[in-house]
Amino acid sequence: MIRTAIVGYGNLGKGAEAAVAAAPDMELTAVFTRRSPENVEIRTPGIPVYPYSELKAHASEIDVVILCGGSATDLPKMTPEVAGICTVVDSFDTHAHIPEHFAAVDAAAKEGGNIAVISSGWDPGLFSIARLYANAALPEGTDYTFWGRGVSQGHSDAIRRIPGVKDARQYTVPVEEAVEKVRNGENPVLTTRDKHTRECWVVAEEGADLQAIEEAIKTMPNYFDEYDTTVNFISEEELLRDHQGLPHGGSVIRSGVTGWDGEFKDTVEFSLKLDSNPFFTGSVLAATARAAYRLKEKGESGCRTLFDIPPALLSEKSAEELRAHLL
Amino acid sequence: MIRTAIVGYGNLGKGAEAAVAAAPDMELTAVFTRRSPENVEIRTPGIPVYPYSELKAHASEIDVVILCGGSATDLPKMTPEVAGICTVVDSFDTHAHIPEHFAAVDAAAKEGGNIAVISSGWDPGLFSIARLYANAALPEGTDYTFWGRGVSQGHSDAIRRIPGVKDARQYTVPVEEAVEKVRNGENPVLTTRDKHTRECWVVAEEGADLQAIEEAIKTMPNYFDEYDTTVNFISEEELLRDHQGLPHGGSVIRSGVTGWDGEFKDTVEFSLKLDSNPFFTGSVLAATARAAYRLKEKGESGCRTLFDIPPALLSEKSAEELRAHLL
Repeated sequence: MIRTAIVGYGNLGKGAEAAVAAAPDMELTAVFTRRSPENVEIRTPGIPVYPYSELKAHASEIDVVILCGGSATDLPKMTPEVAGICTVVDSFDTHAHIPEHFAAVDAAAKEGGNIAVISSGWDPGLFSIARLYANAALPEGTDYTFWGRGVSQGHSDAIRRIPGVKDARQYTVPVEEAVEKVRNGENPVLTTRDKHTRECWVVAEEGADLQAIEEAIKTMPNYFDEYDTTVNFISEEELLRDHQGLPHGGSVIRSGVTGWDGEFKDTVEFSLKLDSNPFFTGSVLAATARAAYRLKEKGESGCRTLFDIPPALLSEKSAEELRAHLL
Repeated sequence: MIRTAIVGYGNLGKGAEAAVAAAPDMELTAVFTRRSPENVEIRTPGIPVYPYSELKAHASEIDVVILCGGSATDLPKMTPEVAGICTVVDSFDTHAHIPEHFAAVDAAAKEGGNIAVISSGWDPGLFSIARLYANAALPEGTDYTFWGRGVSQGHSDAIRRIPGVKDARQYTVPVEEAVEKVRNGENPVLTTRDKHTRECWVVAEEGADLQAIEEAIKTMPNYFDEYDTTVNFISEEELLRDHQGLPHGGSVIRSGVTGWDGEFKDTVEFSLKLDSNPFFTGSVLAATARAAYRLKEKGESGCRTLFDIPPALLSEKSAEELRAHLL
């Protein structure tokens, strides 16, 4: 059994917990939190919750740590910290900062003699792998990524920070006509606005200026100003009733050519439709933890991404089983 | 430059040739054929065509051999033969015989100190990888594979063997309602007939009994009897005009659950739409040849499948470039 620990018990931590519970070859050793452990009630019976500060003291009881913190402030500090003491996986998803995160984690993991796999999940993660295989198969072509329909927590949070907003949920929605053009191999040039729309469901404080809120959302730089955005005001009851889930998904599409002078057109597409973004991401992280454990067992150390990992290492099945049943 | 040789100059060999020509890090050293070399005219200028029997004599000029023979009789013999003298890749696609092919090739490759990657292409190949990642991410779920719309050369050949048939082309067509049910997470139980239909375009000899031909096709065991089959008689001109391409494609879909007691439903889908099946397969084989070369350079030997190969090895880009641009 691979002894795992989860750091951070938000939605992603809960997803990882369920995935570890479902894996026949993994067990949960402990959950670590920066909150007060007595306030954290986990689902797995009989498993302790410790303060994050005690992780090092428990390192010998753990094969792999599954980090379930956020990319903005948690992981840039935590992943190198943990990589120094234990094999670890994370879902660092700030694409622009991956090279520097990789460098910091790689140094710490080598120093500690551990494996660290960063940026797993679905984007980065399965989407990245789909882009890589599609690029290898079709070196001449164009990549497109569409996200949604799904809840963007970052955009929901941004709306919540507007004065007069009590709660909010934002859906990122791909523009179906754009997706179809790409699928048909038309190779369209698409602006930000052409690819996605943003759909907002907002609960306002009593007496708030709704027009001002709508204006503040639609003109918010980076988050909304480059998109066609719709704003719907609803009651708190409606938000709780209709918008509690965290669905997500999307498609990676590569449109390319083979043959002499591009005589043949091909389209490669990888799509996800997820009821729960954090539970699916947690499930991918658990599979990644298995691979990290196996690389460590082989005596390797340093930072890796899914690009560096043979797919078979993610599966609990043997190489023979995989060849016989999935190849 | 990775020095490649192509064995077999049918459609697949032509596809591999175009892919090698397009790869910035690969070059074609020679084409080997079991036909008379003087009757084989290749596209790449200045490259020799040798009899297959001379492959061993040229082994030192070659880094990787791309085998472009058929799975029924060529590859079971050729791949172990070549693996003994050179690093090699093939597209062996008889799913049921993969374990024994793997064993034979593994023994020969280890004996020769070479790497052999078998069963690359798209199914087996990219479809297999999609199944593996989807299974790792969603351990609880069901796999579905749909093929087409595309030309099945085996089924076209089977029709051509019927007395009175001059030429024929058979398309495998997925049943759209079945695909939609799977995409919607309905987890349908599907029979062979539910999943695909077969569409035949037949040129009959003059005076042939069309009804007898249609009957012979529709009742042909294994090939057609378990499918809803349509037979269309057309002229030779129409066949040449409308059915010369070898398009193919399809979808691998895994429908599964995450969370406690399967509370969340997810769908993972990988799809291909290909103008030319052999040129796309040839392109995947060229990328696989790159990976095989790199494994050999690392001092490894033995048989591999894409399950065992880190995705990054398939790409001509560096690890840094991949992390910065595709992750």
